[in-house]
Amino acid sequence: MNKYWSPRIRDLKAYVPGEQPRDRILVKLNTNENPYPPSAKVLEAVKNTADGRLRLYPDPDCVSFREAVARQYKLLPENVFPGNGSDELLAFCFLAFFGPGRPVLFPDITYSFYPVYADLFAVPFTPVPLDAEFRIPVSEFCRENGGVIFPNPNAPTGIPLAISQVETVLKANPDSVVIVDEAYIDFGGESAVGLIPRYPNLLVTHTLSKFRSLAGLRAGYALGDKELIAALDCVKNSFNSYTMDRVALAAAEAAVEDTEYFRLLAGRIAATRDKTAEALRSMGFLVLPSAANFLFASHKTVSGEYLQKGLRERGILVRRFQKPRIENFLRISMGTEEQMELLIKALEELLK
Amino acid sequence: MNKYWSPRIRDLKAYVPGEQPRDRILVKLNTNENPYPPSAKVLEAVKNTADGRLRLYPDPDCVSFREAVARQYKLLPENVFPGNGSDELLAFCFLAFFGPGRPVLFPDITYSFYPVYADLFAVPFTPVPLDAEFRIPVSEFCRENGGVIFPNPNAPTGIPLAISQVETVLKANPDSVVIVDEAYIDFGGESAVGLIPRYPNLLVTHTLSKFRSLAGLRAGYALGDKELIAALDCVKNSFNSYTMDRVALAAAEAAVEDTEYFRLLAGRIAATRDKTAEALRSMGFLVLPSAANFLFASHKTVSGEYLQKGLRERGILVRRFQKPRIENFLRISMGTEEQMELLIKALEELLK
Repeated sequence: MNKYWSPRIRDLKAYVPGEQPRDRILVKLNTNENPYPPSAKVLEAVKNTADGRLRLYPDPDCVSFREAVARQYKLLPENVFPGNGSDELLAFCFLAFFGPGRPVLFPDITYSFYPVYADLFAVPFTPVPLDAEFRIPVSEFCRENGGVIFPNPNAPTGIPLAISQVETVLKANPDSVVIVDEAYIDFGGESAVGLIPRYPNLLVTHTLSKFRSLAGLRAGYALGDKELIAALDCVKNSFNSYTMDRVALAAAEAAVEDTEYFRLLAGRIAATRDKTAEALRSMGFLVLPSAANFLFASHKTVSGEYLQKGLRERGILVRRFQKPRIENFLRISMGTEEQMELLIKALEELLK
Repeated sequence: MNKYWSPRIRDLKAYVPGEQPRDRILVKLNTNENPYPPSAKVLEAVKNTADGRLRLYPDPDCVSFREAVARQYKLLPENVFPGNGSDELLAFCFLAFFGPGRPVLFPDITYSFYPVYADLFAVPFTPVPLDAEFRIPVSEFCRENGGVIFPNPNAPTGIPLAISQVETVLKANPDSVVIVDEAYIDFGGESAVGLIPRYPNLLVTHTLSKFRSLAGLRAGYALGDKELIAALDCVKNSFNSYTMDRVALAAAEAAVEDTEYFRLLAGRIAATRDKTAEALRSMGFLVLPSAANFLFASHKTVSGEYLQKGLRERGILVRRFQKPRIENFLRISMGTEEQMELLIKALEELLK
């Protein structure tokens, strides 16, 4: 840091993403990527963009992609805002909907990027403690606030909220925007998208990095009332006219239209998750009830630090957060069946 | 707009990019794209990314791309900050270096995104009028300020500053960051990159959308002292961990390494520009002395509005800015030789 840094960034503590290893790793279960590749149609769409048209700017309004998403969710294109990954979407949301004044509410144990956005844009916030079973305490989100944001299912716990609970929060907050971050919804949760026509304060965000297996491509979208979408367009057009490139637009559109393929994968991943949870429980782990593509588990007698280190020595990456209440938990992304067998075998060795 | 919009965005006037036409256009000369395609090596790099690895996040630190850029400019990787197009870079710069307090200075006639960033992030600014010949008045940038930003060559005039003039601004501003936006530098200007080792307050931004013919891919980079680059990393990591996708990273790296190919194109474009300027002058246009891949020209007797409309009717798009002093000017991107002949022919008809 030197004198040239703006005062507003001097105290920022940036988000730290899970490691993208450069050395040899056998099994990468640390960033919740999909263990299966995107569909052939998506790869074909990427190849088809490799021509002279790359010299031309992409469509700044992403019309074709918006229309594809709208068809998928039976909404209108003006209910869809596309972005360069859901992280960018969420950053735009903090600028568009959360200002100075009353604090924004989000769980204390949740996606750790939320407080980072809040600090970057000087948005006051109050973390709401999860209950004793690591669940989101819905009633605590029904008090006065400057906005609400939570993932459903929550991360890193994986625990979902029922749609009726989401609706309770929406009803209690007619004057605030409620953002439901559905990054992991397609692995077993109930989406709030169907509530959009009835709640002008609801914004739902989706990423193509998990269910649609395109973490490498950076694409996501927000869904909501057209006035909320217009606010996001206003922020985006004051920030970067062209956030999504021609390749990402083409591949994201193909992925959104190839839902059946990704549903098959998600079913397989959910089956792997439930089987892995069983195996972990039988080895003495507390495993939270996950509806996502990862498990959050702590062993009853052995420390998370020891297990994470031991796994890494065996070429297996998992994630751990050094925060109160959860420092003993491992967040384990679901890999292929074979990868999970390697994980279980390695844990058996470590627990011997 | 409704009650859910944050107060800070209610008065924003977003940037309006040049039209990306969906109807049939013969000649598109309105957004300063390169008329020639990216090289075969770049297209090959795009194709090579179309595989199962797209399920994995890209490298958040863009190490390989940073190293390629550093080699190209004889700098170190810690002097390079990569971004999703130079518009995103510039937005990050406003957050990283310009705060409340003294006003940021930029020309009154310049890239019209600068005041938009300033408004989005509540940065005070003072536009500095260009002189009677539409040149940047260097001495006016040597007074107290909270930062300086200008394009070199300036847009939409195309007029370059000599490197000695850039150095005068740097010397006069030891306490402010001076951003030199070199989007168009490779078509004829003198780059300030060589000054980086001597000026810790200098940040240079480049885009791959013009010289390297990749507007469709969204890639750019900033070059500067490692403390300035660290500030940009801090902002980026508080905003979106992965701004550049796997495809853009691979193609951008290939493009940076294929400089000879793009230099040939730039030479051809500069020749077309000088020939077109000659033709326009002989038809009664005032043409500013451009070192960019566009010309800024107004006719001595016929209005810019009439000419722009007439060209559009003939399938030719050019850009015009409805601002004091320049509303009669057309900004004409350089196309191929054949496209410029069509332009000249159409203008001859309109001036008959």
